[in-house]
Amino acid sequence: MSLDGTYDDGNIFAKILRGEIPAARVYEDDHVLAFMDAFPQAKGHTLVIPKRSSARNLLEEAPETLGHLIGGVQRVAKAVRAALKPDGITISQFNGAPAGQSVFHLHFHIIPRWEGVKLGRHGEGMADAGELRALAEQIAAKIA
Amino acid sequence: MSLDGTYDDGNIFAKILRGEIPAARVYEDDHVLAFMDAFPQAKGHTLVIPKRSSARNLLEEAPETLGHLIGGVQRVAKAVRAALKPDGITISQFNGAPAGQSVFHLHFHIIPRWEGVKLGRHGEGMADAGELRALAEQIAAKIA
Repeated sequence: MSLDGTYDDGNIFAKILRGEIPAARVYEDDHVLAFMDAFPQAKGHTLVIPKRSSARNLLEEAPETLGHLIGGVQRVAKAVRAALKPDGITISQFNGAPAGQSVFHLHFHIIPRWEGVKLGRHGEGMADAGELRALAEQIAAKIA
Repeated sequence: MSLDGTYDDGNIFAKILRGEIPAARVYEDDHVLAFMDAFPQAKGHTLVIPKRSSARNLLEEAPETLGHLIGGVQRVAKAVRAALKPDGITISQFNGAPAGQSVFHLHFHIIPRWEGVKLGRHGEGMADAGELRALAEQIAAKIA
């Protein structure tokens, strides 16, 4: 999928928002939901998405919603840092399949980094659900 | 540099903000400055930074400033799309050297992507200043 197209509410994040499929939830407020990436590129790889949105990507989102979203990203990134003590944090957001996007509901990746540890490839393998729940709890406990 | 430390106003983006060194400027408002990355990972690689800030990274920034910043990222990303017609756009933001950060003034990368074209490595080589100015003008002409 390129940058053109229309929002498909059958996408996996829309299903998570509607509670149709499970996710290891970390944080939720009126505007955003954060949960563990099921195909993590590193331990603690967390996603933050807008809750009321039909934006496939950052280009399509209302600026006000974008403000709430980046506030959520910051809040969760701080908690990831406090919980897991990484040496760095990569934040990324992909628009269109050629940029690496695979789910077409706007989302930000928060990826903890450790000195000397390369990033895994996204989709390399699905994480253990119990491990993701444990990480989600660790991070949630540090939300300010 | 890890996530700990203090802001050093001798960093290269602080110098660009003070006009001490040149940059191929794309867009500026009260809150943000956008300019071409001098070591681009793809044609049209643009940076967006907060103007009045002593945040080294996203974790340290005031939430309100972050809202302005992501608004600027969206505005410039739309102009990059309109000017260069990429197939996708990668947005990334690095916190700490182990995450890929090399300048310690908060910044977002906007990187146009084309089908089948891999990303270059950052710092692979410095771009031609004239080419960067031409790209900056093309993008600036599309700012809404």
